[in-house]
Amino acid sequence: MTGDKVVLVMVGLPARGKTHIARRLARYLSFFHAVKVEVFNVGEYRRKFCGNFVPAEFFNHDDERSVALRRQCSAAAMEDMKRYIGEEGDARVAIFDATNTTRTRRSWVIRQLKELRIKVIFIEVMCEDEKLIDENIRAVKLNLPDYAGMDPEQAVEDFKRRIKQYEKVYESIDVVVERNLSWMKIVDCRRFTINNIRGFLPGRIVQFLMNLHTTPQDIYMSRHGQSEYNLLGKIGGDSGLTPDGEEFARQLADFAETKIMRNADGQPVAARLWTSSLKRTIDTAQFIPHPVIKVAWENDDVQGELQDWIQMRQKQWTNLDELYAGVCDGMTYKEIEADYPDEFARRQADKLAYRYPRGESYLDMMHRLEPMIHEIERIREPVMIIGHQGVLRVIYAFYMGLPREQAPYVSIPLNTVVKLSPHTYGCSEERSNLMPNFSSRPDGQKEPPPFGSQSQSFDFMEPPSH
Amino acid sequence: MTGDKVVLVMVGLPARGKTHIARRLARYLSFFHAVKVEVFNVGEYRRKFCGNFVPAEFFNHDDERSVALRRQCSAAAMEDMKRYIGEEGDARVAIFDATNTTRTRRSWVIRQLKELRIKVIFIEVMCEDEKLIDENIRAVKLNLPDYAGMDPEQAVEDFKRRIKQYEKVYESIDVVVERNLSWMKIVDCRRFTINNIRGFLPGRIVQFLMNLHTTPQDIYMSRHGQSEYNLLGKIGGDSGLTPDGEEFARQLADFAETKIMRNADGQPVAARLWTSSLKRTIDTAQFIPHPVIKVAWENDDVQGELQDWIQMRQKQWTNLDELYAGVCDGMTYKEIEADYPDEFARRQADKLAYRYPRGESYLDMMHRLEPMIHEIERIREPVMIIGHQGVLRVIYAFYMGLPREQAPYVSIPLNTVVKLSPHTYGCSEERSNLMPNFSSRPDGQKEPPPFGSQSQSFDFMEPPSH
Repeated sequence: MTGDKVVLVMVGLPARGKTHIARRLARYLSFFHAVKVEVFNVGEYRRKFCGNFVPAEFFNHDDERSVALRRQCSAAAMEDMKRYIGEEGDARVAIFDATNTTRTRRSWVIRQLKELRIKVIFIEVMCEDEKLIDENIRAVKLNLPDYAGMDPEQAVEDFKRRIKQYEKVYESIDVVVERNLSWMKIVDCRRFTINNIRGFLPGRIVQFLMNLHTTPQDIYMSRHGQSEYNLLGKIGGDSGLTPDGEEFARQLADFAETKIMRNADGQPVAARLWTSSLKRTIDTAQFIPHPVIKVAWENDDVQGELQDWIQMRQKQWTNLDELYAGVCDGMTYKEIEADYPDEFARRQADKLAYRYPRGESYLDMMHRLEPMIHEIERIREPVMIIGHQGVLRVIYAFYMGLPREQAPYVSIPLNTVVKLSPHTYGCSEERSNLMPNFSSRPDGQKEPPPFGSQSQSFDFMEPPSH
Repeated sequence: MTGDKVVLVMVGLPARGKTHIARRLARYLSFFHAVKVEVFNVGEYRRKFCGNFVPAEFFNHDDERSVALRRQCSAAAMEDMKRYIGEEGDARVAIFDATNTTRTRRSWVIRQLKELRIKVIFIEVMCEDEKLIDENIRAVKLNLPDYAGMDPEQAVEDFKRRIKQYEKVYESIDVVVERNLSWMKIVDCRRFTINNIRGFLPGRIVQFLMNLHTTPQDIYMSRHGQSEYNLLGKIGGDSGLTPDGEEFARQLADFAETKIMRNADGQPVAARLWTSSLKRTIDTAQFIPHPVIKVAWENDDVQGELQDWIQMRQKQWTNLDELYAGVCDGMTYKEIEADYPDEFARRQADKLAYRYPRGESYLDMMHRLEPMIHEIERIREPVMIIGHQGVLRVIYAFYMGLPREQAPYVSIPLNTVVKLSPHTYGCSEERSNLMPNFSSRPDGQKEPPPFGSQSQSFDFMEPPSH
């Protein structure tokens, strides 16, 4: 029974953000929906078969030899994909990441997958805004192995010639002729047409893609300053900050003002400020100013004409509240171990799925954090999230490409701002300890060894090994 | 702070299904998302001001007097809507249900709402398929007070003349000129264009609308036959059927074959068969045949060319599993009362929110039933759901327009098929007791007084009292 399997087929000229969309979507499906998904990027097969650098002329659709070679790369990727989605029982989603810009090509894809009786959904990515294309070439394509060691301007020129070759034969998905296919068109990440796509998982995919954009965006996150409960080693509750915690709040305001709310030129930048609904995060945000900044958001959600000025918007989300420990709320880990030894052992055995009596599990929390990820993807501005250890672990693990099982063990120390910069091929990270002299940390949590060092980056550039 | 409020503005010619979509959406948002929502239907204001029957000429856009009168109706609806969404603190969504078919009209709506700084999303409903329009006129419009007591054919003619008046001035939302607005176009409930819509609640709205269709569809539901645990008065577990339960399974198969899988002419009809993942529902479905029926689904999710034959498709959903009672699973209510008196009292006090230790609450269960509602809305065929008391209560309460707080008290007796036929203005219900002589029912549940009689219908036709 393959009825629930889906093959997503990317369509579009180069530098439209297809790979970015494919990879981010794959990450989202596997982390939040525990869906097995793989991306088959034809470009990686080309690099494997033909070497890293091939000139733009290689993409000339009149040159028979290179057309044949490129066909061969597609065919190899297709064969691997068919094996994966058809034969691996738990495989749910495959993404065929290539240009597929002609109708003939798309018919070929359908014929290939017909015998497997798997749902095929085309995702066409288009840009009406030339600026976006240029940005995408510079941000992503220049880092490809294709252009290693080449002069950037020369590389941009080469890449634009490559695009021109594709433009000659490009046929956008036709609303009439291809009306019986299932497809989604994404124009400038702001207009979407969805044709004949139904079902639960496809619905989640469409919803996620409607929030996605390709503009680079930084995510800053920090736990609240030290709380009274931290000091007593108690978990949960809704206590206020200690003097140390308040000191951190002041340091954080300074950090936000100088590092987040200004760009490299010192110009004010609109940003978002999110806290949970608990006192200790709201108090940690108290000194961060909310200036009114003039902005012109072309693509924002408010009607264009209404919006001229924007504030550093502060928002409290119950979704960001700490994992609720139910009957254990307000206890120390020692007390839990003594009073509920069974619970304690159960939690040790499976920290991800363990649900506190009348409380939550990490999986429950992930469920309420999923909409937050949609929200982070949706906004264009940098965002500062003042949260709690548990929730930040999940957000961190999602962006840093960790398997969901590792999420409950991520180290998110107090007094530290973690800056995440997700990009097409992974995410880079920078940690700033704002109170290096702070030492007393009897908050009852045994700190696991941190993943990596102070500043690291996660990269899943390698083509999957098929 | 009104940032999270949304006004949805319907756009489209008469008989496109605007009101159906508006009402079903409102029901979904209030029941599953606890969002306060109201529909402002300008047609209802017209009927209030001008009486039930006005001839098609009333809708002539050249007749100054009737244009002025219709303006007055819109203005009154708009004023009420502004008061509701602007002043009622917990109001989240308002739906302005009118034709709004000209650009001038849509600008007026935006100007009206500008001062409130509320997000406005237009929802345009279009039909390329004339058949759908005809069906909609006959199914919905002939039941309007406008046509009470009139000859149906004459009424259809009148309604078509009314549509013609609107067609003269109709301007569909323009992809270029109106590109800065937020809008969604729905064509034949199969192609959707979404422009500039972002955010969590708008995303859920778009997803729900993408599953909705206007084809009438029946939902049959039944609890599993009597299980061994029922007989012992125990809750939960995964026991098999008693001999009585098996007898019900045979009766149900007969019912399905004669009443669900054949239309009024005795022709075979494709249908869906859903059970939970628990033994007692799967066993209850065991005698229902799965014939292969030739169908041509124009709008189904499988690629058109692949699909010729369809089976009465049986699917097992964990989403349909009974409310999980955690540590109380397998106990009788008496035992729970004796062993966990606090729990028992807490459950009595708030049955909707009460969560069993390491188990679920009704709210938890509603959360996993939400995707099932999307799924029911999505499919076009009749569906037979063999489930459990708790899950069926929620589905029933949703379709019958009950407040979520009443869901845990709905009566869903054993051995009974409940047929729900939702329509634009409510839902009608028909109950068939397949084992009228079955009496022993010591399943430990105190049966609450049932809502209404054996066969009833729920109707929310009345205009809201503003």
